Amino acid sequence: MTIKLKDGERLDDLQRNGYQIIQNPSKFCFGMDAVLLSGFAKVKPGERALDLGTGTGIIPILLRGKTSGRDFTGLEIQEESADMARRSVELNALSDSVSIVQGDIKEVASIFGAASFDVVTCNPPYMTGSHGIVNPELPKAIARHEILCSFEDVAREAAKVLRPGGRFYLVHRPFRLAEIITTLVKYKLEPKRMQLVYPYVDKEPNMVLLEACRGGRSRMTVEKPLIVYKEPGVYMDEIYDIYGY
Amino acid sequence: MTIKLKDGERLDDLQRNGYQIIQNPSKFCFGMDAVLLSGFAKVKPGERALDLGTGTGIIPILLRGKTSGRDFTGLEIQEESADMARRSVELNALSDSVSIVQGDIKEVASIFGAASFDVVTCNPPYMTGSHGIVNPELPKAIARHEILCSFEDVAREAAKVLRPGGRFYLVHRPFRLAEIITTLVKYKLEPKRMQLVYPYVDKEPNMVLLEACRGGRSRMTVEKPLIVYKEPGVYMDEIYDIYGY
Repeated sequence: MTIKLKDGERLDDLQRNGYQIIQNPSKFCFGMDAVLLSGFAKVKPGERALDLGTGTGIIPILLRGKTSGRDFTGLEIQEESADMARRSVELNALSDSVSIVQGDIKEVASIFGAASFDVVTCNPPYMTGSHGIVNPELPKAIARHEILCSFEDVAREAAKVLRPGGRFYLVHRPFRLAEIITTLVKYKLEPKRMQLVYPYVDKEPNMVLLEACRGGRSRMTVEKPLIVYKEPGVYMDEIYDIYGY
Repeated sequence: MTIKLKDGERLDDLQRNGYQIIQNPSKFCFGMDAVLLSGFAKVKPGERALDLGTGTGIIPILLRGKTSGRDFTGLEIQEESADMARRSVELNALSDSVSIVQGDIKEVASIFGAASFDVVTCNPPYMTGSHGIVNPELPKAIARHEILCSFEDVAREAAKVLRPGGRFYLVHRPFRLAEIITTLVKYKLEPKRMQLVYPYVDKEPNMVLLEACRGGRSRMTVEKPLIVYKEPGVYMDEIYDIYGY
């Protein structure tokens, strides 16, 4: 299948099942966080998964490649990103199992119906208005800063569309961990599994991966540290495994 | 100074300032968790520190050796442990700066007065009634299981005796992290710093060290992993440093 790229777009190889993804570097490109989230999330055979704020569709496409879920939906508010995501789905001939919907996270329950997914994933904007500098390039700013939705919006809406016992997977920055955990618990998304991602074995973590269960009692597993680099430029073996090299 | 040991008691060297501690192995001996907490907690010059459930007084004695705090108080409900702690304080000639008080954590504010400490530390019982097997030896059981007080009691009482801006340091098990964080936040003890303790670099953590601030905004630092063993029987250098060898 040939797909016409628009101005500024490029095609990147996902190193998995021959999949490729359309991105525009001047807008926003996926990062290691999306790849690690797709390795951390579990979608069981037959399950339905929804990715909130899917951008160019990286997470549903990777989860389709890595898991035996029944179908994968990506919700994206920005027209241009949703369009790139749809063309990547076509390009990889995944239209039977991956769909991209343009819409607002804050309306997710009215778009899809309550309790309609087994799994929800999200790689949300990390920064609140008061953290860091807002990117003047709007698509990048929307992906990085809580301009269109807050973490509380994400948690509240994820809880609505998950079936009881369904699982919410997210990646975020460790500095917001206390707020993230209290917000999840507020919406009855009980944290069950956590992994901290440390760039080096002797450095502070720069990402946290979390699994929360809709309902359920308070008891969580903290996993072994996920360490990214053995030395500058050389990943640890586990990172190569997640990337699929 | 010579101190008479009672039946079953022994004297252990703390590898710091020549300090020794009286313990009774058939009751309860301090573990690595208390030592790591004394390395994680910061007591600044002139500050007053209180240790809740101090047992044989290991934490106030170590903090007296490691920091420049003004005074260190240990609160212990069990008569026999409080007596051992008092004799260890005497033995180390620390009576001018370390005091042991027998009493109940749930009455701490009436014992010491509200907002009377800059720092509170606690190595609480880790297990609730439903976790693990209750030790039939009562002093061990009280140290390990929430028989006499729950984590909620500890957090609520710590918040009462801390001055605004004062710091609460604790060590606990990672499986209770979500509950710990939500409970701390409930009592306005904002988690500000966290370190996970991994026995080996490729194993799940078995302890979590936390610093919370009474009042203050939500933003925390997660520190580099604290890894205990390089190989079986051989500590990482950092652990030797904390122990003071």
